[in-house]
Amino acid sequence: MAAATRARRCSPEARIVVVEQGPQVALSVCGLPYWLSGQVPRWQDLIAANPQHLREEQGLELLLEHRATTLDTGGKCLEVLDLRSGRPRQLRYDRLVVACGGRPNRAGLVGGQGDNVFSITNLGDAQRLDDFLRSRRPARALIVGGGYLGLEMCEALTRRGLKVTLLEATSSLLGLHSQLSQAVEHELSRHGVEVHTHTRVDGLEGTLGQPPARARTSCGQSFAADLFFLALGVSPEPGLLKAAGAALGSSGAVKVDRRAATSLASVFACGDCVEVEHRLPGRRAYLPLATTASRLGRVAGQNAAGQTQFFSGALGTVAVKVFELQAAVTGLSLGQAHAWDLTAETIEVATGAASSYYPDAGDSRLSLCVERDSGRILGGQVVANRGAAGRVNVLATAIEAGLRWSDLERLDLAYTPPLAPLWDPLFLAARSRHRHTQEKELMWEKGGSWV
Amino acid sequence: MAAATRARRCSPEARIVVVEQGPQVALSVCGLPYWLSGQVPRWQDLIAANPQHLREEQGLELLLEHRATTLDTGGKCLEVLDLRSGRPRQLRYDRLVVACGGRPNRAGLVGGQGDNVFSITNLGDAQRLDDFLRSRRPARALIVGGGYLGLEMCEALTRRGLKVTLLEATSSLLGLHSQLSQAVEHELSRHGVEVHTHTRVDGLEGTLGQPPARARTSCGQSFAADLFFLALGVSPEPGLLKAAGAALGSSGAVKVDRRAATSLASVFACGDCVEVEHRLPGRRAYLPLATTASRLGRVAGQNAAGQTQFFSGALGTVAVKVFELQAAVTGLSLGQAHAWDLTAETIEVATGAASSYYPDAGDSRLSLCVERDSGRILGGQVVANRGAAGRVNVLATAIEAGLRWSDLERLDLAYTPPLAPLWDPLFLAARSRHRHTQEKELMWEKGGSWV
Repeated sequence: MAAATRARRCSPEARIVVVEQGPQVALSVCGLPYWLSGQVPRWQDLIAANPQHLREEQGLELLLEHRATTLDTGGKCLEVLDLRSGRPRQLRYDRLVVACGGRPNRAGLVGGQGDNVFSITNLGDAQRLDDFLRSRRPARALIVGGGYLGLEMCEALTRRGLKVTLLEATSSLLGLHSQLSQAVEHELSRHGVEVHTHTRVDGLEGTLGQPPARARTSCGQSFAADLFFLALGVSPEPGLLKAAGAALGSSGAVKVDRRAATSLASVFACGDCVEVEHRLPGRRAYLPLATTASRLGRVAGQNAAGQTQFFSGALGTVAVKVFELQAAVTGLSLGQAHAWDLTAETIEVATGAASSYYPDAGDSRLSLCVERDSGRILGGQVVANRGAAGRVNVLATAIEAGLRWSDLERLDLAYTPPLAPLWDPLFLAARSRHRHTQEKELMWEKGGSWV
Repeated sequence: MAAATRARRCSPEARIVVVEQGPQVALSVCGLPYWLSGQVPRWQDLIAANPQHLREEQGLELLLEHRATTLDTGGKCLEVLDLRSGRPRQLRYDRLVVACGGRPNRAGLVGGQGDNVFSITNLGDAQRLDDFLRSRRPARALIVGGGYLGLEMCEALTRRGLKVTLLEATSSLLGLHSQLSQAVEHELSRHGVEVHTHTRVDGLEGTLGQPPARARTSCGQSFAADLFFLALGVSPEPGLLKAAGAALGSSGAVKVDRRAATSLASVFACGDCVEVEHRLPGRRAYLPLATTASRLGRVAGQNAAGQTQFFSGALGTVAVKVFELQAAVTGLSLGQAHAWDLTAETIEVATGAASSYYPDAGDSRLSLCVERDSGRILGGQVVANRGAAGRVNVLATAIEAGLRWSDLERLDLAYTPPLAPLWDPLFLAARSRHRHTQEKELMWEKGGSWV
C-alpha cells in the first residue's frame, strides 16, 4: 500500500490496481501481537484505511481475494485468479510493483502440523490463534525463536494467561550481544517466561494422529506444551518474479536496485520478497522489516509513477518492547561484521537509564560495533527500561552521517534526571574506547549525575 | 568536580585542591526538584561521591565552606576565606580552573524578599523550601518562569499537595513553538496547574512587614499565594575573574576558548560563569546547563592537567519531564535563528507518539528549525508522551554531522507499535517540507501503521 498511495500521490491521473490475496489491505500485521495480547480491543482497530476510503479518496482499484499467478513481462500482462469465483483474469500494465512478501521459516523443523501450531503472517493466522485461545483454553505455550516476534508473543501470551516457554537456537535473543541478551532474558523470567537459549527445536511430536504435544530439541530434550508458536523468521516468496525470470540475490530474494527495479523491464519490487541495498557501501541484505518495506515501497511507487527516486539503504533498525524493557538494534552486530569480513570490535557500556537516584531509574546496556582501523560505527544495540529506541536512532543517524565512534563524544545530548543520565551512555562509549581501558571515573559510579 | 576528576585522571601525581563555598560537593543540583517532590527519599541520595571517597580514592584536597575571594594571576595565587573560622588563606597554583557558577535572575522583580520566596541554586535553598513546606503547610504556590526548572517545580509542588499557578512572561513555555507549548500547558492543566503565559510579574507585595502574599503583573493582575518560587533563569557570577581582568563576552559571562581557557594566563573556566562556543560556527552563547558545564569541565580539567583537549561546542540540548509528558529542545528556535540573522523557517509535524491503535499511544509534536537556503538543520523541538528526548538527540546528532532536513528521510529509524510509529515524525518532517504543502498521504491519518 505504501507503493500504491505513493504512486497515486505522484500521478493523480494514473489507473492504479492493487491485487491482494487476502480480504484486507492496509492492516498492521505488526499490530497483531497487541490484538492477541488483548491490549488492542478489536482487530479492526489495526486497519489504517478501509477499502472504501482507498477506492473513493485515493482512487485505487482494489482486487481483494485475488492472487497473482503468472507474469508475462513481454506482453506486460499479469494473470490473477479470483479466489472466490475461481476465475482467472488478465491485467495489462505499464509498470508493475510486486510485493509478494515472505513465508514463515520452518528451519528444518519436522512434525509442525496440527491445529495447535501457529505462526503469523496475516490476520487469518492471528484469528485462528485467537479462536484457539478462546475455545481450547491452552495452559502452556512454547515459542520457538527469540527474534522480535517471538519476544512480542512471549508478552502477548503471558498477558492471555498462558505459561510461556521460549526456546532459541542461538546463544542470544534478537541477535543481541551476551550481556544485553541476558538482560532481556532476565526481564522475561521476571514475568514468568522460561527461557532456554542454545536450544534448537528439530521436531514437534505427540500421539499419532493427534496434534503435537511436545517439542524435541537437537540435544534430546523434550518440552511439553498445549500450543506451539513458530517465530523462526521469514523467507522470501519470490515465486511469481522468479518464474518470470527475475534475477535473485544470494539470499534467494529478488534483487532490486536503488530504484526498487528488478531485472525485468518495468517491474519493480519491494517488501519481504526482495533483498535491499544495505547502508554500508557495496552490501546487500535480506531485511524483512516493516520499515524497510515501507521505505522501499514508497520508492517503488514513485518510480512506477514515472518519477525517479532512490532508496538510501537499510540498516535493519529494529526495536521491541519486552514487558517493561526495550531492546533496539541497528546496523551490524559483531558476528555480522565478521561475516562480512570486517575487522570489528565492540564497546560495551553499562550505566543507569536515568539518574541513579530517580525512582526505578533502571539500567541501560549499550553495545557499539566499530570498525577497528577506521573507527567507523557499524552498528549498535541498546537494552534499557527507557530510551533504547532513541539511542539506537542516534546511532542509525551517526552511521548514515558516517560518524566515527569518537565523534559520539562531541554530541550535545539531552539530560534530565527522570529520562537520561548526565553522561549519556553514547558519550561514555566514546570515552570508554578512547582509553582502551575500563572507564573508572566518578561518572560511572552513580550514573554520573552530580551536577 | 568534572574538571577535578578529569584532571586527576590525566595527571595522577598532581596536587589538586577543590575550593567549594558550600558544605557539599558532587551533589546533583538537578536532582533537587525530585527530592522536593518526595520521589527521592533523602537529599543524601543525590550525592554522587562523598568527600571521603574524593579525598582517599581520587586524591583530591577538598576545602569545603571556603570562598575564593581574590585572584592574583601575576603571582599565581588564589586567596580563599574559611567561612567557618573567618580566616583567609593563600593558595598557589600552576593552573587554575574557576567554576563560580551563576545566580538566579530576578528579572527586575521587586519585593522578592521574605521567607516564602524561593529559588534553587544549591542544597541549602532546597532545604529551606522543604522546611517551609513541612512547617508552614502552604496551600497555594506561585511559580514565576516557565523554563525547565519552573516546569519541574510545577510537578514537584503539585506532588507535595499544593495548588500551583505558573506565570510566564513570554508567549510560550520553555521557548517552545506555539503548538508544542500548548501541549505542555494542557498537560499542566490536566494535573491541576493553572498556567498563564504573556504574564510578566513585576513585583511581589503584601502587608507591610509581612512576607509577600500576592504577585502583581505588569498588566495589573494580582495572584495570591502562600509560596513564591522564582524560576527566571540564571545569570553568570564572573566576579572573581572579572576583578582579575578576565575578558567577558557579550552575555556578561567569562569568555573562554575551545580549550576552556580564559584571557588570563593559566586560568581556565567552566560552568555557569562562562559563555561557550555554540555548535553553529562563529557563535557564542550563554547556556547554563549541567550538560554544557560537565562537558566543558572535562575539557578544562584535561587542559589544566597539561594535556590539550577541545570543546566541540554546545547546542543547548534540554529535556524535561512534565507529569506524563516529555519536552525536549536542541539548537535554535525560530526566534533565536532570527535573532542571529539567519533566514530560517519551521516545519511542524503532529503525529502519534506510537502506533495509533496501541493503548495510550498519545501524540508527538515536532518542530524543526531549518535554514531556508542551505536546508541546514538549526534546531528542533519535540513534545510527546514518549521518545521526545530520543528524537531531539537524533536532531542534535544530525546538526553535529551537518545534515540537511532532507537527509532525515534517509534515516533508518526504529519502529515498534508500543514505542514509535512506522513513519517516524522525523521522516515525516523531511517529507513534509519536501512538498511545501501539508502532507496528506495516508500515513498521516492514523499514525501510518498499517504494515
